[in-house]
Amino acid sequence: MEDITAFYYKRIKASSDALNTIFLNDYHKFVDKEVLNLTPKQSILLDLLNEKPLTNSEIAKHFSITPSAATQLINKLEKKGYLKREINLNNRREIIVHLDEKGIEYNQLMLKFELHLIQKYYSKLSEKDLENLVDLQEKIYKIALEIQKREGN
Amino acid sequence: MEDITAFYYKRIKASSDALNTIFLNDYHKFVDKEVLNLTPKQSILLDLLNEKPLTNSEIAKHFSITPSAATQLINKLEKKGYLKREINLNNRREIIVHLDEKGIEYNQLMLKFELHLIQKYYSKLSEKDLENLVDLQEKIYKIALEIQKREGN
Repeated sequence: MEDITAFYYKRIKASSDALNTIFLNDYHKFVDKEVLNLTPKQSILLDLLNEKPLTNSEIAKHFSITPSAATQLINKLEKKGYLKREINLNNRREIIVHLDEKGIEYNQLMLKFELHLIQKYYSKLSEKDLENLVDLQEKIYKIALEIQKREGN
Repeated sequence: MEDITAFYYKRIKASSDALNTIFLNDYHKFVDKEVLNLTPKQSILLDLLNEKPLTNSEIAKHFSITPSAATQLINKLEKKGYLKREINLNNRREIIVHLDEKGIEYNQLMLKFELHLIQKYYSKLSEKDLENLVDLQEKIYKIALEIQKREGN
């Protein structure tokens, strides 16, 4: 079974790498050099903060990193104007991290880029294929979530 | 149709973002801080060079960036010991970019990490599901390739 899984995984990886290279070419037309140089973790954090502001310890917990590593991550993005710290008005001893102007712009750009990918590529799949793709993606996510829970993360 | 595509795309994105966060937690256990801070383009370049050495202009072409932007990308990774430049023995006026020690180590680590993902998560899918996932992924890749060709990239 392991060998079969490896065979399929290699094919998934090959096409997904190639697809990502095509998407990256499109991405270059949407964003400037600074955004291109954001690390995956920095991008994920900006995406997370788009849902709601978070405390330092919530951010540390999300990435399974130490609070001081989270502070470093926040500092770098704050210095560049992507996010800002504010006192929590409900608990004045707590600092909350919000998106700043460039962080808001970043998320608007990502939304625009997603719509671009939908219109240009995904809309060419049949509805049945799209449905299958969603189902499989959610299945592997549920498996991963289950395993993660069992590990106690 | 556009709305239906957007609906499925949002679900694909939601589960794939959540899945990537889980994989990222695993990733932290495999790599050190320096590797975590590589940008997506830097990681892709190291992956590409694992197949074969490339010239500066081949790298520029692959990412659709200018030769001087490619030089900057190469310089940064060369300085950190991930890759090195060598004179092409078949054409002494040409410089070829190879993986250096840390670049080789990086790719070995990525292979180990992939095997880990296969064993831990993907091997829990049925063979039929894996086959479907591969088919769909390759379908969307072929669509993207076709569109890219028509655009003349």
